Amino acid sequence: MITEIDCRDLDRNDPLAFVRDRFDLADGVIYLDGNSLGPPVRAVAETMNGLANDWQRMLIRGWWDAGWVDLPRRVGDLIAPLIGAGPGTVVCTDSTSINLYKAVVAATQLVEGDILTDSGNFPSDLYVLGSVAELTGRRLRIVDPEQVEESIEAGVVSLTQVDFRTGRRHDLPALTARAHEAGALIVWDLSHSAGAMPIDLDRHGVEMAVGCGYKYLNGGPGAPAFIYVRLDLELTNPINGWFSHRVPFDFDPAYEPATGIDQMRSGTPHVISMAVLEMALSAFDGVDMRAVRAKSEALTGAFIEIVSDFGEVLTPTEPALRGSQVSLRIEGAVDLISDLHQIGIIGDYRPPNVARFGFAPLYIRYIDVWNAAMAIREWRQETSR
Amino acid sequence: MITEIDCRDLDRNDPLAFVRDRFDLADGVIYLDGNSLGPPVRAVAETMNGLANDWQRMLIRGWWDAGWVDLPRRVGDLIAPLIGAGPGTVVCTDSTSINLYKAVVAATQLVEGDILTDSGNFPSDLYVLGSVAELTGRRLRIVDPEQVEESIEAGVVSLTQVDFRTGRRHDLPALTARAHEAGALIVWDLSHSAGAMPIDLDRHGVEMAVGCGYKYLNGGPGAPAFIYVRLDLELTNPINGWFSHRVPFDFDPAYEPATGIDQMRSGTPHVISMAVLEMALSAFDGVDMRAVRAKSEALTGAFIEIVSDFGEVLTPTEPALRGSQVSLRIEGAVDLISDLHQIGIIGDYRPPNVARFGFAPLYIRYIDVWNAAMAIREWRQETSR
Repeated sequence: MITEIDCRDLDRNDPLAFVRDRFDLADGVIYLDGNSLGPPVRAVAETMNGLANDWQRMLIRGWWDAGWVDLPRRVGDLIAPLIGAGPGTVVCTDSTSINLYKAVVAATQLVEGDILTDSGNFPSDLYVLGSVAELTGRRLRIVDPEQVEESIEAGVVSLTQVDFRTGRRHDLPALTARAHEAGALIVWDLSHSAGAMPIDLDRHGVEMAVGCGYKYLNGGPGAPAFIYVRLDLELTNPINGWFSHRVPFDFDPAYEPATGIDQMRSGTPHVISMAVLEMALSAFDGVDMRAVRAKSEALTGAFIEIVSDFGEVLTPTEPALRGSQVSLRIEGAVDLISDLHQIGIIGDYRPPNVARFGFAPLYIRYIDVWNAAMAIREWRQETSR
Repeated sequence: MITEIDCRDLDRNDPLAFVRDRFDLADGVIYLDGNSLGPPVRAVAETMNGLANDWQRMLIRGWWDAGWVDLPRRVGDLIAPLIGAGPGTVVCTDSTSINLYKAVVAATQLVEGDILTDSGNFPSDLYVLGSVAELTGRRLRIVDPEQVEESIEAGVVSLTQVDFRTGRRHDLPALTARAHEAGALIVWDLSHSAGAMPIDLDRHGVEMAVGCGYKYLNGGPGAPAFIYVRLDLELTNPINGWFSHRVPFDFDPAYEPATGIDQMRSGTPHVISMAVLEMALSAFDGVDMRAVRAKSEALTGAFIEIVSDFGEVLTPTEPALRGSQVSLRIEGAVDLISDLHQIGIIGDYRPPNVARFGFAPLYIRYIDVWNAAMAIREWRQETSR
């Protein structure tokens, strides 16, 4: 069994230890909810001041002089290396739901057949897929997560890599290969994985991917989302907007699509939110995503080792099968989360009876794992008295 | 002919003079581009600091403790009185393009027939309508602005109230009444009018409206947009998202739409951008929109009176027919705008050969009109030498 001393040793030898100091972490808080909303990097307040200042001084010229107009591509190019995507394949725009909608509608224009997903997908992805099915007349098939591989056939496959409830991770390379074998296009939602593990989109030939900016990317509440399109894929954005035009500032009444990833943009970028995300991504400077994944497996592994005595661990114990969170089914989960919150340990509750703890390797330490697990043990002893 | 002394008198007697001080205007600048990007109100830097602080301290709890979760409705209810809408009929979400897409697709589900618009519509609205037509198989009819009234028949009518190029204003009450007579649903884009004039959506029974947050609402670069739906209208959002669900935080895999305007939301709100818009809307506290319109007509009227000698005024001289901007077709417009910029007078250029000047009544003074017009006169004398 792992000990407190082991945890302190692991922290001392952590090759990512230097990254924690880039975050402005609340005093006395162990934040295990970065999978829901990442904390701010230290420079955020300064970035916001700079934005207010640029806006006040430059006014309309800020679009060019402060580089606002290039933000969506600049942020996209910062996200790209985290998900194994080349420059010019990712753009920051809209919300995850809107991007998923655009991606899946665009996919239906390229391939016949059903839309396949699984019941472990994030609820709002299921809502969006329902909308797409209704609008396009395609059938939406929802299978169990374990049945995805055998269910893939020609059509569109839309999956979320890491299950928000259980932390179960789909095998992205295998399912992508299976989709291609079957003549399907695949769209991955990376909201619960981008920034917590390396993802080799280009290498595996994934057609499209979307993901959110406010979880492991730490872009702040409601940070804009991103969309990736494989470089050789020719598609049509189903929602043509100002910034998906080839030359937006020509104000041409006739639509002419931009080439490449710009085509997946829509309206005016939400500059203030997006600039904060840009700054947040600097936390990844010089960070090796393989080291992030190694630490993630170790953090979640240590936590599982201790807490599996306290409840049912819903998260796969096999490291390759999980993301960077641990879900514990435990009697009184809603009270547990609330009581832990009182002592500065922040996880979250997902119905029914699941306590969920995220381990963001950029700022969570092994000693945090230890202290959180010990607090759960203590809570259990007290409540079972 | 209006004189400098008249302008100073008008400023002294301006019932809206008190509002200008709410803005953090750049020194020595006459800002006539607020119809493209409004300037910041004074409290913006403070709002941003507060946001950074709330995020750092509250983390995930900010959604409730800082009220982020209610922002879209709170901001909607601040915009509502500016456009003659009752509480609970407006929500702040997404971009104008996305909202227009949702509105027009939803309208096609309620009524048969073509989609009608005019060639003076904002280019990106035309792009979006093209997308909707393609997706739904409806025919998109694009007529001249003057032909709209006679062209309306059963179907969907989608118009922008004020033409971004010429400042020509459609007669919203008359065209709405005509649409209803013909059995059409009407969707108004208020991007170039909201905040610059009273708009009585409820009174005229307008079905839906959309608009942007960063022009006369001063919400900052890329501020989120808004959407209005008439209270009794039962429709289906074509892009179901997390926050259009009846109970988003139940994480129910089955979609159940929210009632009312919440149904038109989609993904997670862009909190940071939206909170800045919320603060910006405080500039309208205690402001009578009829006084705003009266001042707008007077400002644009004075400007037209002087500059009509210098070029072709594309904006209607009849006050009722124009919005709050004046477009001047003038030889060398692109140089004029650039040269004026050098001396702190900021308008903008729209191809071909149009110099565009916006007069936001909340912070533009009559003396600004005078000085800008005199600067154009001087430029013309110098360049014609």
